[in-house]
Amino acid sequence: MTNQSQSYRAAYQGIDGAYSQEAIHQYFKKQVHTIGCSTFEEVVRTVESGKAEYAFMPAENSIAGTIVQTFDLLLESTLSIIGEFYLPIHHNLMALPETHLKDIESVYSHPQALAQCAESIKRFGLKPIVDWDTAGSAKRILEESLQKAAAIAGNYAAEVYELQLLASNIEDIDHNTTRFFILSKQTSKRSKRNKTSILFTTRHAPGALVASMKEFSDRKINLTKIESRPDRKHPWHYIFYLDFEGHIEDPSVEKAMLNILKRAQMVKILGSYPCGDQHEG
Amino acid sequence: MTNQSQSYRAAYQGIDGAYSQEAIHQYFKKQVHTIGCSTFEEVVRTVESGKAEYAFMPAENSIAGTIVQTFDLLLESTLSIIGEFYLPIHHNLMALPETHLKDIESVYSHPQALAQCAESIKRFGLKPIVDWDTAGSAKRILEESLQKAAAIAGNYAAEVYELQLLASNIEDIDHNTTRFFILSKQTSKRSKRNKTSILFTTRHAPGALVASMKEFSDRKINLTKIESRPDRKHPWHYIFYLDFEGHIEDPSVEKAMLNILKRAQMVKILGSYPCGDQHEG
Repeated sequence: MTNQSQSYRAAYQGIDGAYSQEAIHQYFKKQVHTIGCSTFEEVVRTVESGKAEYAFMPAENSIAGTIVQTFDLLLESTLSIIGEFYLPIHHNLMALPETHLKDIESVYSHPQALAQCAESIKRFGLKPIVDWDTAGSAKRILEESLQKAAAIAGNYAAEVYELQLLASNIEDIDHNTTRFFILSKQTSKRSKRNKTSILFTTRHAPGALVASMKEFSDRKINLTKIESRPDRKHPWHYIFYLDFEGHIEDPSVEKAMLNILKRAQMVKILGSYPCGDQHEG
Repeated sequence: MTNQSQSYRAAYQGIDGAYSQEAIHQYFKKQVHTIGCSTFEEVVRTVESGKAEYAFMPAENSIAGTIVQTFDLLLESTLSIIGEFYLPIHHNLMALPETHLKDIESVYSHPQALAQCAESIKRFGLKPIVDWDTAGSAKRILEESLQKAAAIAGNYAAEVYELQLLASNIEDIDHNTTRFFILSKQTSKRSKRNKTSILFTTRHAPGALVASMKEFSDRKINLTKIESRPDRKHPWHYIFYLDFEGHIEDPSVEKAMLNILKRAQMVKILGSYPCGDQHEG
């Protein structure tokens, strides 16, 4: 859209050093200009208004589950999902340079990160203090020059705020991964292995959901996620969210989608995109 | 189990004044001894070990979605779901008695509650400060005798900590409801309108999920919730979580369950229970 720069602009929710920003850098593996937003709505608006080409939105986390807000926004937005990215989430203890663990008395972070590191915090003998977010707690250590405090955040936050890692991967639980959607005004071309995400609501008839799903199983199309959400505007109606393997340009997917459309109340294709690499954290 | 008291004991995660504790009191509508626990695991253990008859666990929230941790615990636990309860969540601004809104400068609460009340906080011109949980912020106002600060929490927290309500229902969004499961070592008798919750995994065959769901639609059994979760122990396998209308003692439900069981890898009946009243917040 602009010709002043050839590099991509990607919007995310959070401040410098947030896990979402780390996901953007890992995904593009090259020069990208990141735009931190204060809300998910602002992330979507930033791309819709052309101030960025891409939006990075967390879709689900292996521990916390589906990020409902993202799906609620996808229902209303004109953007398409053009990619998915799995980011392993590792929490690290970080402090000002030349600080020793034995001098640290307290630790700042988001309540969820503190909870996920509860055993490590106890082992280190630290007093946990809640903060707005993980990257924000790293920023606080630097800006307030806190000598006896540490932050729990991602590696990327340590880099951004030039903090020193005192301990890495201190989370009590394994396999904490966040799946991100990459949204754009464009759509994605077919690649080797694709996934498609759709939303639909069924007419009020028993078996409507089963009939829709049968369109996939009859064609050996694998479903990889299914979730129902109550429709806020229509009590006792449901919105179904489905992920399946395949691209919307595949003939078998086209046929399944057409049959579902004829039977459904509403269908929305959120996007077809290359399968992300679901590596172990 | 004990004969020293006839009143029920119910465990929940949180401190005095938490929304979960409010749910317990509203559900039983009579004398009940509540036991606050620091984690969801502890809530389940408290009932399994006989120190309480009931556990109250949040299952899903209309804004935040499914509480994955609860379902992960249900997969392993020996307890049954014997009831569901829908609690409308209203956030209120509360402070020490005889305080005026104009004297308040800052407001404490959980990040999620602060985010849900962001517009009201801005309108009141308050500085938001993060805290561990909503009830904890109310407790802090009382214990630290904070004159110029308020807390955002439920009505019940204001009662428990004898704070004064400065403003009620200050959330920016409508329809914030949390669905709770009531768990017990017992099972529930059939009532007029029932729901059943099950977990199952399918054998690795395309269409296995559809075939299972068809058992319900063929018998006009309404599904009210469906959700897939990756099986952490078996990569690329899924655990399906289903709610449907009916009781496990209904002949049609028995037949559907038997057919699903023959085809599934594993089925677990989480419980049959009376439908909760899904009143508008």
